[in-house]
Amino acid sequence: MNQDQTVHNSQLSPTRLRSLKTMAQRLRRHSLISTTEAASGHPTSCCSCADIVATLFFNHLRFDVQNPHNIYNDRFVLSKGHAAPVMWAAWAEAGAYPVERLLTLRRVDSELEGHPTFRSPYAGAATGSLGQGLSIGLGMALAARLDQTGARVYVLLGDGEVAEGSVWEAAALAAYYHTDHLIAMVDVNRLGQSQATMYGHDLSHYESRFQANGWRTLTIDGHNIEEINRALCTAEESSGLPTAIIARTIKGKGISFLEDLNGWHGKPLKKGEELEKALAELGSNFDLEEPLMVAPAPRSQAPTRTPASLSSPPEYAIGAQVATREAYGNALKKLGATSQAIMALDGDVKNSTFSEKFLKEFPDRFVECFIAEQNMVGTAVGLASQGKIPFCSTFACFFSRAYDFIRMAGIGQVDLKLCGSHAGVSIGEDGVSQMGLEDIAMMRAVAGSTVLYPSDGTSAERMTELAAQTPGIVYIRTSRPKTPVLYNGNEVFKVGGSKVLKGSEQDKATVIAAGITIQEALDAYEQLRREGIAIRVIDLYSVKPLDLDTLRKAARETGGIVTVEDHYPEGGLGEAVSSALAGEWFKFRKLAVNSIPRSGKPAELIDMFGISARHIVQAVKEMF
Amino acid sequence: MNQDQTVHNSQLSPTRLRSLKTMAQRLRRHSLISTTEAASGHPTSCCSCADIVATLFFNHLRFDVQNPHNIYNDRFVLSKGHAAPVMWAAWAEAGAYPVERLLTLRRVDSELEGHPTFRSPYAGAATGSLGQGLSIGLGMALAARLDQTGARVYVLLGDGEVAEGSVWEAAALAAYYHTDHLIAMVDVNRLGQSQATMYGHDLSHYESRFQANGWRTLTIDGHNIEEINRALCTAEESSGLPTAIIARTIKGKGISFLEDLNGWHGKPLKKGEELEKALAELGSNFDLEEPLMVAPAPRSQAPTRTPASLSSPPEYAIGAQVATREAYGNALKKLGATSQAIMALDGDVKNSTFSEKFLKEFPDRFVECFIAEQNMVGTAVGLASQGKIPFCSTFACFFSRAYDFIRMAGIGQVDLKLCGSHAGVSIGEDGVSQMGLEDIAMMRAVAGSTVLYPSDGTSAERMTELAAQTPGIVYIRTSRPKTPVLYNGNEVFKVGGSKVLKGSEQDKATVIAAGITIQEALDAYEQLRREGIAIRVIDLYSVKPLDLDTLRKAARETGGIVTVEDHYPEGGLGEAVSSALAGEWFKFRKLAVNSIPRSGKPAELIDMFGISARHIVQAVKEMF
Repeated sequence: MNQDQTVHNSQLSPTRLRSLKTMAQRLRRHSLISTTEAASGHPTSCCSCADIVATLFFNHLRFDVQNPHNIYNDRFVLSKGHAAPVMWAAWAEAGAYPVERLLTLRRVDSELEGHPTFRSPYAGAATGSLGQGLSIGLGMALAARLDQTGARVYVLLGDGEVAEGSVWEAAALAAYYHTDHLIAMVDVNRLGQSQATMYGHDLSHYESRFQANGWRTLTIDGHNIEEINRALCTAEESSGLPTAIIARTIKGKGISFLEDLNGWHGKPLKKGEELEKALAELGSNFDLEEPLMVAPAPRSQAPTRTPASLSSPPEYAIGAQVATREAYGNALKKLGATSQAIMALDGDVKNSTFSEKFLKEFPDRFVECFIAEQNMVGTAVGLASQGKIPFCSTFACFFSRAYDFIRMAGIGQVDLKLCGSHAGVSIGEDGVSQMGLEDIAMMRAVAGSTVLYPSDGTSAERMTELAAQTPGIVYIRTSRPKTPVLYNGNEVFKVGGSKVLKGSEQDKATVIAAGITIQEALDAYEQLRREGIAIRVIDLYSVKPLDLDTLRKAARETGGIVTVEDHYPEGGLGEAVSSALAGEWFKFRKLAVNSIPRSGKPAELIDMFGISARHIVQAVKEMF
Repeated sequence: MNQDQTVHNSQLSPTRLRSLKTMAQRLRRHSLISTTEAASGHPTSCCSCADIVATLFFNHLRFDVQNPHNIYNDRFVLSKGHAAPVMWAAWAEAGAYPVERLLTLRRVDSELEGHPTFRSPYAGAATGSLGQGLSIGLGMALAARLDQTGARVYVLLGDGEVAEGSVWEAAALAAYYHTDHLIAMVDVNRLGQSQATMYGHDLSHYESRFQANGWRTLTIDGHNIEEINRALCTAEESSGLPTAIIARTIKGKGISFLEDLNGWHGKPLKKGEELEKALAELGSNFDLEEPLMVAPAPRSQAPTRTPASLSSPPEYAIGAQVATREAYGNALKKLGATSQAIMALDGDVKNSTFSEKFLKEFPDRFVECFIAEQNMVGTAVGLASQGKIPFCSTFACFFSRAYDFIRMAGIGQVDLKLCGSHAGVSIGEDGVSQMGLEDIAMMRAVAGSTVLYPSDGTSAERMTELAAQTPGIVYIRTSRPKTPVLYNGNEVFKVGGSKVLKGSEQDKATVIAAGITIQEALDAYEQLRREGIAIRVIDLYSVKPLDLDTLRKAARETGGIVTVEDHYPEGGLGEAVSSALAGEWFKFRKLAVNSIPRSGKPAELIDMFGISARHIVQAVKEMF
């Protein structure tokens, strides 16, 4: 059998058609049984898309089932992640794992979780927070273009999730970048969790919205396998436009007492009579007339990820005035020169974050995402899944826009690098809406994250390098103002490290700072020194993980700790340090932005909101 | 002069037309001078919309300038908040404050900040994070409908910010609710911060997108005052649809060397020659041929906010099994009965959060926002600005979707109540994507927030009541499983309080828990008691602010503290407590969700991820 021909044949043979119909019923059967066995899950959401999934998997997808990471594989992203059982079933039928494993659904020892997670290599992407799949698919599609694999990306969305604005961020950008190998399939089953969706079965709303965003649209009966197949064939023809297949479906399709009824979202059937009745309705013969398999990918290659390092060391003179955000841009450019895997994304602030330095050097590896931070992060997640090392940059505060995407990337263990510039009150006149004041709290609470906060140009370059070399989510916090360079280009920084900038055996207290407050700490050091009071000053550039040894030593030797940060008091540097040291005996003062800031000059604000040298001096003195 | 007639007259008299043109030039002049004086700001973004603002303010808006909180006032929301100088100028010209005050722009002692903030009562809404204004405007429009004021809401957007998906969440919902008194004006000046926008001056993209979302659209030349006026007149006619006026404009309009040029975003003119040259181009005569003022509102009334309290006390029997999320729904209904100000919003999970109990009782005060959490929060911000007390509910994890909106509401000091259900691993089989594990960290870091975490039905009802009675952002964290009722209905809870559930003079350690972990703590208490070890157990239901006295007393009296929380280790209960107690001498163990959770049974997960009674017992014993 010539799989490739089959894939491009819009005319299904009668036996193939009957086999696909049977496969769809198998998928429904698996979904019902596995959710009943788990006593939880969303069988009706599986039934509405079973015909689409069967047709896609067994007549279109090109995928080496034994090699799920092959970059030549087509990609399938289940954006409506609660329909996981039908996807797990399709992969089982495709030979990825034994069908019996479906009965482990949602068990604590199973990789077949309630929603797709990183624990199964077949998940495509961790989903379950709705409205994220199209962004991830867009990233995959951009990676496929860059790698010239010819792979297509299929994203299955629910109609309810299309209310998420992030879907439209992705749709607009996909059309802008002409990713015509990105195919969205919307399973319009009319019912949300708690009531009918906004538009019910009126497909024209979805059509016109995708069209308005520059997409080709096809509307079909999502339970007619011939229609599904023809639509996929059309979508797979290059047109310069991404294609949305809008499918009218019935929630609970195939089981008369579930079909199109409110109140059945997220409810499994009861074991026994209820389940048996449903299964009987699905048919009695599930044998396939012809074997169905997923077509192989045309070639095989694992993602290549050349290790990235700075092509040359940082070359700032000690004392020179350099903004950490600008050093980030310089470093990104140097990393891009050593590894093709490095990519950069920005949300129309590249001239502020300095990611434009990378754009100028490597335009093909830069993705301008415009003012749509959720989609920027989602696109980066898709790129990372294909072996890229994406760096996203925007103002620190605007990453809060993408927190759900970052959260999902964290629990997906994605290698994603984020640089938030313009942290804290030190940005000055633009005012509080532009100040990142909760970003450390937010980023520390991401599963498996690393949080780095450079205080000068040299360390900013090195931390950008560390980010590229550290797995998982790494957040780099940069500042707007220029600050004096503290370190030589050959200074070594590490995740979990810190630098003791000032210290002696006479130290009466330790001041722990990072970023913009380092200069305040050093000023305080000088003032106190003139008064005969010695203090230790630590540059805590690795905010997560912490350099516990150095911190403990400081607490024990000096007996007093003052933390000072350009951040709100909650979840930042001060809490991280004091919580990690709990159990030690030490006096403690936390200096942080102590009320809602405002427009003003940076120095005025640093003083007004309690984090200037003057406040440090006072805090140290109050300890005695 | 009959203002009302003027407002509805689509034909401008020649003198009025000339006066409006002069006013637009005045606004440009103010914008240039004030930003130059501040040495920062966005003059070119002001110039593109000066004609729109002049026409709107002085020929359409009905607003008691001396009474900015009158609910009969029309509302103006500057969604493109960086154009604040032109809005400050318009209010000054309208008589809100002396024109001289414009020279204080961005000064640390001025309420005229770089972006609109709560410090000026004329701001309409705190903006500056783009893409939020339309959601806020929608909330204002819904409030106006509820209060039958007849007020209109005008939202001015930039073209760049229309890339934010939240704009389309708001657009879709506004059409769904037929808010035809909501008027969006899009200032299509073609240029973003770092490059041209996605669509440049092609207005058809904006037209088709708004139309696809169910809006009436009007495209105009945004510098032709007669066209602007006619469009506003048309938009003000009821049609059942909200109207979007898509205006083609020139960034920097009026100053030849700024017009339509990249590289001038967010740059003020230099004092001296550069500014003088620009001012000269704006003209030499700024006298108005006829006086221009803002039309008065038809009536005057301050927002009424009847204090809310539970209409009857919680009535759960001690030991009965009640889910805190269900108690939330019960409380909301009781609060709604005592105050018309109480409203509820939900994101299509009202049958899980139990806000549906409120819907059934008070359908007019419930807003189904579908799966679009950003817009849900933005709509609530708009409602709150009109004196409502909005309660938003969704799964705790999905508030991360709206974190930027919550952040802005925090710095806007908005009275917003948020209830996040399904917190932590205790949700079980649905898996990690549905678990709120960073919500405490996120919410604590919001400016001026209060964070409450009830552990039983009684306290959940009382904390919902506390939320309604506490200013600012209040977050209530509820759990999915049913748990035993601990408190009598007359038990008193307070913001900043806690409850010592178990305690004696023999206590060897203190276990601090909240929510779902209370039961684990009580189980640990029993186990340890049987072994002859007495511990104190504290229900720390107020996570922010903390009951410092009780915590300090516990640390001093028992010498050892174990915190246990269904949350990641960062920024939660454990860090809050240990950081607040830093400086005390006590042993400390923090039990929190210690790695990325998965699907499984609640009890299995609570144990697997380190927060069960067994772990508490072990942590207590390790202290000795």
